[in-house]
Amino acid sequence: MTKPREVVIIGGVAGGMSAATRLRRLDEHARITVLERSGHVSFANCGLPYHVGGVIEDREALLLQTPASLRERFDLDVRVSHEAVRIDRERRVVVSRDLTTGTEREHPYDALVLSPGARPVRPPIPGIGRALTLRDIEDTDALVAATAGARSATVIGGGFIGIELAENLVRRGLRVTVVEATDQVMAPLDPEMVTPVHDRLREHGVHLRLGVSVAEIGADTVTLSDGSTAPAELVVAAVGVRPETALAEAAGLEIGPAGGIAVDPTLRTSDPAIWAVGDAVEKRDGLTHEAVLVPLANTANLQGRMVADLICGRPARLRDVNGTAIVGVFGLQVATTGWNEKRLRAAGRPYRAIHVHPNAHAGYYPGAEQMALKLLVDPVTDAILGAQGVGTDGVDKRIDVISTAMAGGLTASELAGLELAYAPQFGSAKDPVNMLGYLAENLADGVTRTVQWHELADRMAAGAVLLDVRTPAEHAAAPIPGSVLVELDTLRDRLDEIPPGPVIVHCGVGLRAHTAARLLAQHGFDVANLDGGHRTWQAGVRATARTHGRTRVEPGLRAAG
Amino acid sequence: MTKPREVVIIGGVAGGMSAATRLRRLDEHARITVLERSGHVSFANCGLPYHVGGVIEDREALLLQTPASLRERFDLDVRVSHEAVRIDRERRVVVSRDLTTGTEREHPYDALVLSPGARPVRPPIPGIGRALTLRDIEDTDALVAATAGARSATVIGGGFIGIELAENLVRRGLRVTVVEATDQVMAPLDPEMVTPVHDRLREHGVHLRLGVSVAEIGADTVTLSDGSTAPAELVVAAVGVRPETALAEAAGLEIGPAGGIAVDPTLRTSDPAIWAVGDAVEKRDGLTHEAVLVPLANTANLQGRMVADLICGRPARLRDVNGTAIVGVFGLQVATTGWNEKRLRAAGRPYRAIHVHPNAHAGYYPGAEQMALKLLVDPVTDAILGAQGVGTDGVDKRIDVISTAMAGGLTASELAGLELAYAPQFGSAKDPVNMLGYLAENLADGVTRTVQWHELADRMAAGAVLLDVRTPAEHAAAPIPGSVLVELDTLRDRLDEIPPGPVIVHCGVGLRAHTAARLLAQHGFDVANLDGGHRTWQAGVRATARTHGRTRVEPGLRAAG
Repeated sequence: MTKPREVVIIGGVAGGMSAATRLRRLDEHARITVLERSGHVSFANCGLPYHVGGVIEDREALLLQTPASLRERFDLDVRVSHEAVRIDRERRVVVSRDLTTGTEREHPYDALVLSPGARPVRPPIPGIGRALTLRDIEDTDALVAATAGARSATVIGGGFIGIELAENLVRRGLRVTVVEATDQVMAPLDPEMVTPVHDRLREHGVHLRLGVSVAEIGADTVTLSDGSTAPAELVVAAVGVRPETALAEAAGLEIGPAGGIAVDPTLRTSDPAIWAVGDAVEKRDGLTHEAVLVPLANTANLQGRMVADLICGRPARLRDVNGTAIVGVFGLQVATTGWNEKRLRAAGRPYRAIHVHPNAHAGYYPGAEQMALKLLVDPVTDAILGAQGVGTDGVDKRIDVISTAMAGGLTASELAGLELAYAPQFGSAKDPVNMLGYLAENLADGVTRTVQWHELADRMAAGAVLLDVRTPAEHAAAPIPGSVLVELDTLRDRLDEIPPGPVIVHCGVGLRAHTAARLLAQHGFDVANLDGGHRTWQAGVRATARTHGRTRVEPGLRAAG
Repeated sequence: MTKPREVVIIGGVAGGMSAATRLRRLDEHARITVLERSGHVSFANCGLPYHVGGVIEDREALLLQTPASLRERFDLDVRVSHEAVRIDRERRVVVSRDLTTGTEREHPYDALVLSPGARPVRPPIPGIGRALTLRDIEDTDALVAATAGARSATVIGGGFIGIELAENLVRRGLRVTVVEATDQVMAPLDPEMVTPVHDRLREHGVHLRLGVSVAEIGADTVTLSDGSTAPAELVVAAVGVRPETALAEAAGLEIGPAGGIAVDPTLRTSDPAIWAVGDAVEKRDGLTHEAVLVPLANTANLQGRMVADLICGRPARLRDVNGTAIVGVFGLQVATTGWNEKRLRAAGRPYRAIHVHPNAHAGYYPGAEQMALKLLVDPVTDAILGAQGVGTDGVDKRIDVISTAMAGGLTASELAGLELAYAPQFGSAKDPVNMLGYLAENLADGVTRTVQWHELADRMAAGAVLLDVRTPAEHAAAPIPGSVLVELDTLRDRLDEIPPGPVIVHCGVGLRAHTAARLLAQHGFDVANLDGGHRTWQAGVRATARTHGRTRVEPGLRAAG
């Protein structure tokens, strides 16, 4: 019998533990050691905010495995509270330190897997020492303990984790302030898509402080960059995460341009005996194939499984990533995949944006709630570049369908023909995703032209007439300034009232205006439809009203777990 | 100006009305006439059962458009209670009869669209004259009226419509019997998948009479083929639908092998001036490309829109269909796409079946409910052939994702790498669809072998040992007869207890047994995993216990609307 393979895995959560268990299933005889710095392995990373809020009451529910259970079932040598402090690549040895005793020990390896994850960034603010962060069970315990007796909390950062924490601290009865340096929470959303999220947070009592930063953390308040203060018996820093690269860097492994551990499509680092997975490594962007950081649990798990295959000589190859992600916000589902409009525009890439506001299921069946969906499309190839959705129901499904369509290389127009399961309580005979396809096809074929909410003011300034084809009551209740009312059902008889110059039509969400636009176009008018109608325009304008010309920050996506 | 195009559309519901409105948006000058035999157009077909049950209280909610509203908005000449009685293809004229006055009238056409739908089959049973059916608003009114004062109802047929009606009649307080001639309701499901559906129906008081037919309909009972009776103050026939082809046949248009109007990939009938769409036409099967009947609302709507494009000379081409469908059953979601195992086996096509029972979202987050998912895979090409799902939550999403993957040509193994939106309340880091992909890959790569629930008895009879790797408590509570208990966590130390012959391992759902199978395989055992574990086996065995050797019937899918 040949000498058993020695594998050392650094990091025992999503990627590391997927690697270890798959490796055991592929190689019963390997010696597998897992080194985990924290006191727990295989814990439910993404559940931590919900334990803080008491939604997941039982702390034990977060601990999916223990070193003992992993020993029994998978014959793994799992060492918690063991930090990997050094890699001797020459000798193929990892040095661990037992954080309890201080004892150092060597672990020889044939294959080494780095799965150290990413750590919360601590911004260099005076008083930051008092701020808590959330990464592991120990952090969660500290946060839960700190909420006891506290009446107020300030969360620094409005990314996915910051918003989840804000919601859960509200659940604990705290007065919560979220301080976000940019003009919106959840950077992966475009501004007009984030407005309902801001509304939702405020409706539930979260104090949103956008476009300001924390200048100083005091004893029980924080002072913001505009001189104001916010109550903060508790301070949580959630401004994003950074790959844990220190060990890899010290070992001389290559770090990529995005700041993560560089790996090839077979997850190998610059040392062929060392693989790396999860939040610490760079991925390839689905659109540009460039190096990106996408700290997501599903990707980490997938890579963990894949690296086990690769170590065992099985073929596997990394796919580029679109970074599909979702977060719950007081009952709202907020989900994204691929690129957003801000990023496309900043990169100078041509795109088309499509906004719809369909019901999650048939409008005639009780409980139908409207959602906002946005699709970004390559105007030359009709490829799907990205999508965003916000709503109380069925947003997860539509983003997953679009992500799958992207994986399958379907064009935006091909979304029209997707066969999606329909009964009135689950969808519509023309599903929201089909609707996006119809619109994409109409745009690709030139059947319709649209104007985006942020283009409207300039177009009107240049002389375009804005025609509101809604009912008089709808117009009176919420007019777009400068618009002229000609109700759709009277339009055919009132064509002589329409001025000959360029016309933009709008309605509530874009459906009636599409009919109006087609009518006018066929009567010779130069016409375009306000994409997404009054609803998108209003959301966009409200977002813009908060804008102070600040620059965009990179999406802070969900940490693995 | 050229003479306006004259278009006549026969049938004013899903396909017909999609065609009419799209046509108007593409051709403002066409003269468009819609002839509808019933008293209403553009009504919410799929909502009718839920009005019967009072879920959709307001009857008006079902009436999405009226002739007047369609005249105003789309300049359509919509004639309800007008039956198309004759097509004179030579003269390109349709003759309509006003069902109120009896007046006949000619409608010349340049293009004719047939969208007559499908009609409920009325089985030739003595007394069938008393049975109601459900197709349009008039039927719905009659059914609602008939429920008043009635205490019992028998639904003949356990297809999608029959089950929806049964649920809604229970909601009305009736004692409901469903009589289904085969051994299961919902033919698109394989037997082991339908068991929870049968359970659910019975839990809610539905009397299921499977494997018997209605011999005679009496005054307030029905007599079944086994001589028993069921109370039936109300009788509803829901045994399926048949394409409305009479008019097309009388006009000499080609009827296809499946009994629907034959159309080419551009929806043209055998007369190039006549197009046809919706439930009345044959579609092409996604797997065999053969003619099939798939009466689904989403397909009808899509075809309606497409035919308008085609009439206007725009390029469009029909895709083959997989027949993705869903139905609610007292809070259960039951969804399918593509082929099932019964059909694959009957057709002699090779396949692999994969069963999983994952949670709809992360198990550690409250409210996680287990679902049953089944995937059928081509063992040579790894193509996805079909899928089925049953559960209270998130089944619609998974079937839609799989349907989209099929449309994009992804292989079963590629489901493993799909980036699906994950947060613990919406899914799992390894989503149920990813899990199917992992299993498909393991089977394709030979990492694992599985035995299906219906193969187990034969394998054991041939000498295979069945090893239960669950806990002693689980084994004691629900053993598979003849199985030997060796708990997974002790297996590695008890290898000498395992006999050398073929071994089948099982656990609750197949996960622990996979680990056990890999362990044993690497120690030289000839081992396979019982696919889907005890849960699938039990569901299958319970289904089989009801089987009396009857033959399968074709799926009766959802009628358009």
